[in-house]
Amino acid sequence: MKVRVYVRLKPSILDPQGRTVLRAAQQMGYSEIQQVRIGKLIELDIDASDKNEVESRVQELSRKLLSNPQMEEFDLEWSLEEN
Amino acid sequence: MKVRVYVRLKPSILDPQGRTVLRAAQQMGYSEIQQVRIGKLIELDIDASDKNEVESRVQELSRKLLSNPQMEEFDLEWSLEEN
Repeated sequence: MKVRVYVRLKPSILDPQGRTVLRAAQQMGYSEIQQVRIGKLIELDIDASDKNEVESRVQELSRKLLSNPQMEEFDLEWSLEEN
Repeated sequence: MKVRVYVRLKPSILDPQGRTVLRAAQQMGYSEIQQVRIGKLIELDIDASDKNEVESRVQELSRKLLSNPQMEEFDLEWSLEEN
């Protein structure tokens, strides 16, 4: 089973890396780009067949290891292709 | 208009950061996790109203600035909420 964990900075947290990319994009002529925020896309392969069985564990793992709950928030997306 | 750019390492490229996270997860008892791959989630706010007008420019920006085409691949996802 495949799960994607999207980890993003909370809206109130500054994103200096995103600002740097924004500035570079504008200098390259992409003046229509107004804001850039950079987060993480974490893809997990999980040895389990029942989504409900593992969902709370993946939530827990995301909270404890994959994100910093003080500064970040996360969402899970379950791949349709394999349950 | 909001666009998400998902940047992932090509399948043939090793991901040491992902392997480190995998090892940590297994040491924490999450033995059902079999693989971890870490990529980037880049959110763009774009000042444009016509998706078709900007799609090729965002593709170009993703290729030139947001990803390393030698090692990475990317997909775009357009937010439904604002066109």
